Amino acid sequence: MTDVDTVARAAAAAFEATRTATDAERAAWLAAIADRLDAAADELVDLADAETALGETRLRGEVARTTGQLRLFGQVVVEGSYLEATIDHAAPDATPPRPDLRRMLRPLGPVAVFAASNFPFAFSVAGGDTASALAVGCPVVVKTHPGHPRTSRRTAELVTEALAAAGAPAGAFAIVEGFEEGLELVDHPAITAVAFTGSLRGGRALHDRAAARPAPIPFFGELGSINPVVVTAEADATRGADLAAGLAGSFQLGAGQFCTKPGVVFVPEGSALEAALPALVGDGTPRLLTPAITEGFGTGVERVREVPGVDLVAGGAPGAPVVAATDAATLAAHEHELLAEVFGPFTLLVRYSSRSELRAALDRLEGTLTATLHAAPGEPVDDVLPRLEAISGRVLFAGWPTGVAVTWSQHHGGPWPATTSQHTSVGATAVRRFLRPIVFQDAPDEVLPAALREANPRGIPRRVDGVAQPA
Amino acid sequence: MTDVDTVARAAAAAFEATRTATDAERAAWLAAIADRLDAAADELVDLADAETALGETRLRGEVARTTGQLRLFGQVVVEGSYLEATIDHAAPDATPPRPDLRRMLRPLGPVAVFAASNFPFAFSVAGGDTASALAVGCPVVVKTHPGHPRTSRRTAELVTEALAAAGAPAGAFAIVEGFEEGLELVDHPAITAVAFTGSLRGGRALHDRAAARPAPIPFFGELGSINPVVVTAEADATRGADLAAGLAGSFQLGAGQFCTKPGVVFVPEGSALEAALPALVGDGTPRLLTPAITEGFGTGVERVREVPGVDLVAGGAPGAPVVAATDAATLAAHEHELLAEVFGPFTLLVRYSSRSELRAALDRLEGTLTATLHAAPGEPVDDVLPRLEAISGRVLFAGWPTGVAVTWSQHHGGPWPATTSQHTSVGATAVRRFLRPIVFQDAPDEVLPAALREANPRGIPRRVDGVAQPA
Repeated sequence: MTDVDTVARAAAAAFEATRTATDAERAAWLAAIADRLDAAADELVDLADAETALGETRLRGEVARTTGQLRLFGQVVVEGSYLEATIDHAAPDATPPRPDLRRMLRPLGPVAVFAASNFPFAFSVAGGDTASALAVGCPVVVKTHPGHPRTSRRTAELVTEALAAAGAPAGAFAIVEGFEEGLELVDHPAITAVAFTGSLRGGRALHDRAAARPAPIPFFGELGSINPVVVTAEADATRGADLAAGLAGSFQLGAGQFCTKPGVVFVPEGSALEAALPALVGDGTPRLLTPAITEGFGTGVERVREVPGVDLVAGGAPGAPVVAATDAATLAAHEHELLAEVFGPFTLLVRYSSRSELRAALDRLEGTLTATLHAAPGEPVDDVLPRLEAISGRVLFAGWPTGVAVTWSQHHGGPWPATTSQHTSVGATAVRRFLRPIVFQDAPDEVLPAALREANPRGIPRRVDGVAQPA
Repeated sequence: MTDVDTVARAAAAAFEATRTATDAERAAWLAAIADRLDAAADELVDLADAETALGETRLRGEVARTTGQLRLFGQVVVEGSYLEATIDHAAPDATPPRPDLRRMLRPLGPVAVFAASNFPFAFSVAGGDTASALAVGCPVVVKTHPGHPRTSRRTAELVTEALAAAGAPAGAFAIVEGFEEGLELVDHPAITAVAFTGSLRGGRALHDRAAARPAPIPFFGELGSINPVVVTAEADATRGADLAAGLAGSFQLGAGQFCTKPGVVFVPEGSALEAALPALVGDGTPRLLTPAITEGFGTGVERVREVPGVDLVAGGAPGAPVVAATDAATLAAHEHELLAEVFGPFTLLVRYSSRSELRAALDRLEGTLTATLHAAPGEPVDDVLPRLEAISGRVLFAGWPTGVAVTWSQHHGGPWPATTSQHTSVGATAVRRFLRPIVFQDAPDEVLPAALREANPRGIPRRVDGVAQPA
């Protein structure tokens, strides 16, 4: 396997070229990667299905999502707002006199990306972290996930070929494999930021390691999430059976192996949702992504089921999907056991007897990627909505959290332990993670980057003397 | 002294009110603080001069800077771009169908601010960290600096009175004093972010502590900076004496107690700057801010002077300003001793014999807040400019780094060890430190924050379906 030091040094050596490439050039690199992955979709899907058992339909969709994401980040950098170009002209008569100041964002340097188990394409070798870092001019070293090694290697070959053909510098992209190699990568002086998608335990260890370096670096981790869903009594009364179908689809999708899987669902006592749900829960035993995930699923389900006051609502054969249920008092007494994420096809219903009991139960939740509210049209939600906003990064109304659209406005993050950062790992603003500001003071126009020259030759949106100006 | 737990809990209790106050309301709170500080300027300047010896002119200017800063942050939040409001309308016919997504930034929660020694107003109780946090709706608890306790307490009284009169909630602002109290504050579960201006040693300890919490929080530290200045041979030949005057003023300003003080100056061998400098260096012994700073200054100067190959160019009486000089080879052999910040009126000239030797010497520098280039008009600077950009957050041309204008475009930050973050502590974008994104999916218009409603009732710049739109 490739030596980490060699790869990290090559990334550092490539930085000057990736940094000074134009946004249009980098967008072309990403498009070249996307084209090559699309052309190899059949082969990639076969490889990934053999390694992950996620199925052809899902995997084909994921390849398309991945290549769409690469192209979106190309559009984002060409559009140019991401540079946050800001110009304040000199004010020589001010007290004190003000110089000419021109600010923009610049790439940090080589980025380490830790691939996830559950998205062999979209959060892996050529996934959103890689795309957003490369888009803004940061070389990338991916630590692959051991759950899909052949898919990772083949994807890396395609990325490397595409980048070379598109004129990107050697060293702008590489992969490494292995647990120790991942640690070495986080420690390497050439690495300037880490992006990670994975478990709370693994993410916490790497977070602490990045913070403890002689020169600490930012760690952008997406770790774990319980994704609470609240169903009001009115919503349950009017469309409980529909909600059951939606929940059944969402928590079993991809065998429950999504960071946005609804893990706890607050329902009124005696809900129509609960009554309808058992018939919608599969009794097969889906193959999970890795032996460790299979084991963790079993352990997690057992931990919940052992709590006194927890019922089995549906499923429960070893390895099969499971729905358990409890009441708000039991949740309050056993929050540690009941509110830890169980990765896999499991969800917990929490029955509440009143809106105030619901509100109190919500106070026990920690940070989460998403929070979903199912209420009736026009129903007042002032008592629960602020709490859902306080703990999450995405608040959904009348939907299910397992789809994460890749758009300009998407946010995939939330308070600890959902993520370790104030930035997203999905959507256009994911690029902000790998940028830092720089301001030029009284610089001659000809030495400025194009984004900051007086004539705006890049034609990008800027803020000039305090006023936002379109392109 | 006030109990930290009580104060932190009060801040958490105030958060709902500070969060839901409108931007205009919070701007009015800041204006009320500014008005009250301006009205008490005489008293505050007297208090601060007795505690810091920074002098009336400087301190009066600093009060004005502080109140101007408070008003600027009010303008920033009223303008509304800081919310990064972004709307993507639903695309039901897309594959897969896309929901309606609306993203904006929201305040994090209570913020701990650690005041600096060297700015008793602008980086202290009512300084930029406090102003930027309050502006966006985060309650603030300031850990005051022991170097100016009476100034801090009096400022806090004025801030508290102004906030109460302007209708801000109790608990939105408080101070605590003491070393242990500061640690307790960083550890407190109600605190969601820390802003710090101070030494590398103290900042590193708090950074590590914030990262090690059960729920880690962001630590925005501004720690230490060497602020290199490069003088080309052409610039020295044409205006060496002027540059000597500029440098003499900059490194002795405020007795050298600025985080942006030029600490190392690269000059050609036999420079006119070096020849002219000694006559411009004071021989008095300025009173430094605290006994610890006085001691650190003496130790730092001694550490440099003991290096073989270092000459004394000017000054050097105990406690008086000092200019030392050395050559690039000595710098290379003793970078640890020569490139550590010496806080106080000290600067080190590094004589270079060629442009390539200059370039190699610049490669030894770590992250810094500023980097200054003095070249002749039209002189090619491609060989040194990229290096100055790579290590710093502000690149100056033909100026001196000790003035830091508070504007929309200012950036006060840089790679480690200058700061610990990708954000600034001065200028409009300082507010970004205390915000996190949230996205609403398929939300009814009436439950959305005003910034995201379809009709844009706030009248702010937004991005809609990928296109930046002015207000």
